[in-house]
Amino acid sequence: MSTITAAYYRGNKTFAVEEVNAQPPAAGEVQVRVAYCGICGTDLHAYHGNMDARIGFERILGHEMSGRIAAVGEGVEGWSEGDAVVVRPLDPGAPNPATEAGYAHVSHNMNFIGLDSDGAFQQLWNVPAFTLHALPEGLRLDHAALIEPAAVACHDVRLSGLAPGEDVVVIGGGPIGVLVAMVARDAGGKVVISEVNEHRLKIAGQLGFDTINPVKEDLPALINARTGNKGADVVFEVSGTQPGVDAMTAVAATRARIVMVAIHAKKPSVDMFQFFWRELKLIGARLYEPEDYDKAITLVASGAIDADTMITDVSPLSEIQAAFERLDNSPTALKSLIKVGEVA
Amino acid sequence: MSTITAAYYRGNKTFAVEEVNAQPPAAGEVQVRVAYCGICGTDLHAYHGNMDARIGFERILGHEMSGRIAAVGEGVEGWSEGDAVVVRPLDPGAPNPATEAGYAHVSHNMNFIGLDSDGAFQQLWNVPAFTLHALPEGLRLDHAALIEPAAVACHDVRLSGLAPGEDVVVIGGGPIGVLVAMVARDAGGKVVISEVNEHRLKIAGQLGFDTINPVKEDLPALINARTGNKGADVVFEVSGTQPGVDAMTAVAATRARIVMVAIHAKKPSVDMFQFFWRELKLIGARLYEPEDYDKAITLVASGAIDADTMITDVSPLSEIQAAFERLDNSPTALKSLIKVGEVA
Ligand SMILES: NC(=O)c1ccc[n+]([C@@H]2O[C@H](COP(=O)([O-])OP(=O)(O)OC[C@H]3O[C@@H](n4cnc5c(N)ncnc54)[C@H](O)[C@@H]3O)[C@@H](O)[C@H]2O)c1
Ligand SMILES: NC(=O)c1ccc[n+]([C@@H]2O[C@H](COP(=O)([O-])OP(=O)(O)OC[C@H]3O[C@@H](n4cnc5c(N)ncnc54)[C@H](O)[C@@H]3O)[C@@H](O)[C@H]2O)c1
Ligand SMILES: [Zn+2]
Ligand SMILES: [Zn+2]
Repeated sequence: MSTITAAYYRGNKTFAVEEVNAQPPAAGEVQVRVAYCGICGTDLHAYHGNMDARIGFERILGHEMSGRIAAVGEGVEGWSEGDAVVVRPLDPGAPNPATEAGYAHVSHNMNFIGLDSDGAFQQLWNVPAFTLHALPEGLRLDHAALIEPAAVACHDVRLSGLAPGEDVVVIGGGPIGVLVAMVARDAGGKVVISEVNEHRLKIAGQLGFDTINPVKEDLPALINARTGNKGADVVFEVSGTQPGVDAMTAVAATRARIVMVAIHAKKPSVDMFQFFWRELKLIGARLYEPEDYDKAITLVASGAIDADTMITDVSPLSEIQAAFERLDNSPTALKSLIKVGEVA
Repeated sequence: MSTITAAYYRGNKTFAVEEVNAQPPAAGEVQVRVAYCGICGTDLHAYHGNMDARIGFERILGHEMSGRIAAVGEGVEGWSEGDAVVVRPLDPGAPNPATEAGYAHVSHNMNFIGLDSDGAFQQLWNVPAFTLHALPEGLRLDHAALIEPAAVACHDVRLSGLAPGEDVVVIGGGPIGVLVAMVARDAGGKVVISEVNEHRLKIAGQLGFDTINPVKEDLPALINARTGNKGADVVFEVSGTQPGVDAMTAVAATRARIVMVAIHAKKPSVDMFQFFWRELKLIGARLYEPEDYDKAITLVASGAIDADTMITDVSPLSEIQAAFERLDNSPTALKSLIKVGEVA
C-alpha cells in the first residue's frame, strides 16, 4: 500500500498536510492520481469556518482538479490506467423529485464531492467512475484544472440561451465572472465586464474584454450608449452583492435574460417593477450537467478559455496553508492552483 | 351630432358625469358604442390620485370594455356597423428597441388607451381600428367586459409554459389572480389559490378551486404535502405584497417557473439563494399580445372563465362615483362593471 500526501481542513483557517496510506478504489470507483487542483471561492468560504457544521474537521477539500487514472475498481468499464481525466464532483444520491424530473445536478440528496466527502487535495483520490470525463490528448493538466469552474460558466451561458450578436453584461469579474465572459464571447456575445477591483479590471482587459468600473462610471448609461438605448440582452449577476443586483435590472433590455450565478446569502432587494414593466426573465443557475463539462473541456483545449492569463499562481500541496492565506489577502490573484502531485 | 354621456376623472376621488357632443371617428378609427366597462385596479389607483401627473383632470378612464361598432372612419376595412367588439387598448407609438424586437405590447412609447388617452367610460368611443377584436355570436356583452383582464391572465399562463398536469399555485385571489387560476386550470394545471381575504377565498371556492389562507395555514407545508415534497411547478405572484414574494420561492419546485404578474411599487427582498439552489426561473409578464386576446375571447365564450361568478355588481354610468366608492371600501366585491350604455 502506497503512502500519499493529503491536506486536511482542521478548522479555524488551518490545514494539516499529512502522509497517509492510500486506499484502493472500491467497486465502481476509479483511483485518480491528482495533478492540479484549483482553490475555489467555496474552499475559501470553508477555510473561513463558514461550513464547519457541514464538512467537519477531517475533511480533504478540493474539486477543481485534473489527473490521470492510477487504478480501476471492480466492475468499472471503459477506463484504463493512465487516462487523463477530470472529475465532475457530483453524486446525486437517492432518487427525489429533482432527479426524477431529470435535474440530477440539483438533486435534493446531493453529495458534493470535495465538501460532503473527501476531495482532490490528496495525491490518490477514489471517485465513482460515473463522475469522470476524459481529456483530449495534449491538454495541459494545469489548464485542465480550470474545467470545473469553466463548466459552471458553460452551464450559465447555456441556460441564458445566448444567441450570436447579443449584448452581454457580466457583473463581477472574479474567476467565475471572467469564465462566463469567455464562454459568452465564444458563443458570439458582445461582452462587457463590470468589476470594482482595479487588478481584476486589468486582467479582464488582458483577456480582451471591454470593462467598466461601476463605482467610477455610470454603468447603465454606458450600456445604453453602446446598445442604442436597448440595454443588454443577457446579464450575468456574478458579484453576489446588492449593487450587483441593482445593476442587473438597470442594464437589462426589454425581455432580457438575467442569469443568477452568484450565491446571495442575504436576501437582496430586487426591482420587481422592472421585471413586470420590461418582461425581464431571471434564471437561477447552479453547477453543471455532463454536457457543460464536455463544452468546458472543448473550450479550455481550444484556448477560447485563456488558462494562462487566468492562472495567477501555482503552489505545491505542502504549501497549501500559505496558498490559502495568500489568496485570502490578495487583491491581485484570480485563480490559484495547488500542484498536488507529479503526474507525467 | 349626437350627445353622449361621459365620465371625467376630476382628481381627488371625483368623477363628473357630463353630456358632451360625440366626435366622428377620424381616418383609421372606428367608433364603438360602449356596452359595459369593468373597473380595473389601475382605475382605482388613478381614482386615489396616484396617477394625476400622468392622466390629468380631463381624462375619461376605462379599458375593460365591450360594445358594438357605431361608425367606421375613412380607410378602415373589414369592420361594419353593428359588429360586436372588444378593444385591446394599446397604441405602441413610434418604433423603439422593444417594438423592433417584436414586443409591441411593452413598447417604450406606449399609449395605454384609457389612461394616456380617453377610455371607455363614455357611450361613443373612437379607437384605432387595429385595436379591435371581433366577438363571436352569442357572447353576452357583460361577460365580454372580462376579456381585457382575462387576456392578462392568458398572457401570464402562456409565458409560464404551463403543461397539463403541472402543479400551480396562484398567490393572490383578486380579479387577476382568479382569472389566472381559471386559465391555468383550462390549460390542465392543478391549481391552488392562496388568498388572505375570506370573501375572496369563498368566491375562489365557488369557482371550484382549492384554497389556502396563508395567514392561518402553513402554505409551503401544504403545497409540499399535495405534491409529494416536490413543490409547485408554476407559481403566479399576483398579490403585490412582500409575503407573496416570500411565498413564491417557498412553494416552488426545483426548476419551477414563477410568473411576476403583480406590480411591486416597492422593491421587495427576494430569496435569491433559492433561485440559485433550485434553479428557479422568474418571468416578468405585462399586459397581452393579440393572441392572448383571441384566447381570452375563446375562454369567456366557452364558460371556462366563469363570468357570472366573477361579476359581483353592475352600476349605470350615471352612478360611477358611487360604484368606485363602494368598490374602494368593499372586501366582498370581485369585479364591478359599469353599464355604459344600452347596446342591443
Ligand atoms: N452558480 C454556481 O454554481 C456557482 C459556482 C461557483 C461560484 N458561484 C458564485 O459565483 C459568485 C462569483 O464567484 P467568484 O469565485 O468569481 O467570486 P469572487 O468573489 O472572486 O468574484 C466576485 C467579484 O465581484 C466583484 N464585485 C463586487 N462588487 C461589485 C459590483 N458592485 N459590481 C461589479 N463587480 C463587483 C468583486 O470585486 C469580485 O471580483 C460567488 O457568489 C460564488 O459563490 C456560483
Ligand atoms: N401584469 C399585468 O399586466 C397586470 C395587469 C393587471 C394587474 N396587474 C397587477 O396584478 C396584481 C393583482 O391585480 P388585482 O386587480 O387582482 O389586485 P387585487 O389587489 O384586487 O388582488 C390582490 C389580492 O392579493 C391578496 N393578498 C394580499 N396579501 C396576500 C398574501 N400574503 N397571500 C395571498 N394573497 C394575498 C389580496 O387580499 C387581494 O385579494 C396587482 O399588483 C396589479 O397591479 C398586473
Ligand atoms: Zn467550486
Ligand atoms: Zn386593467
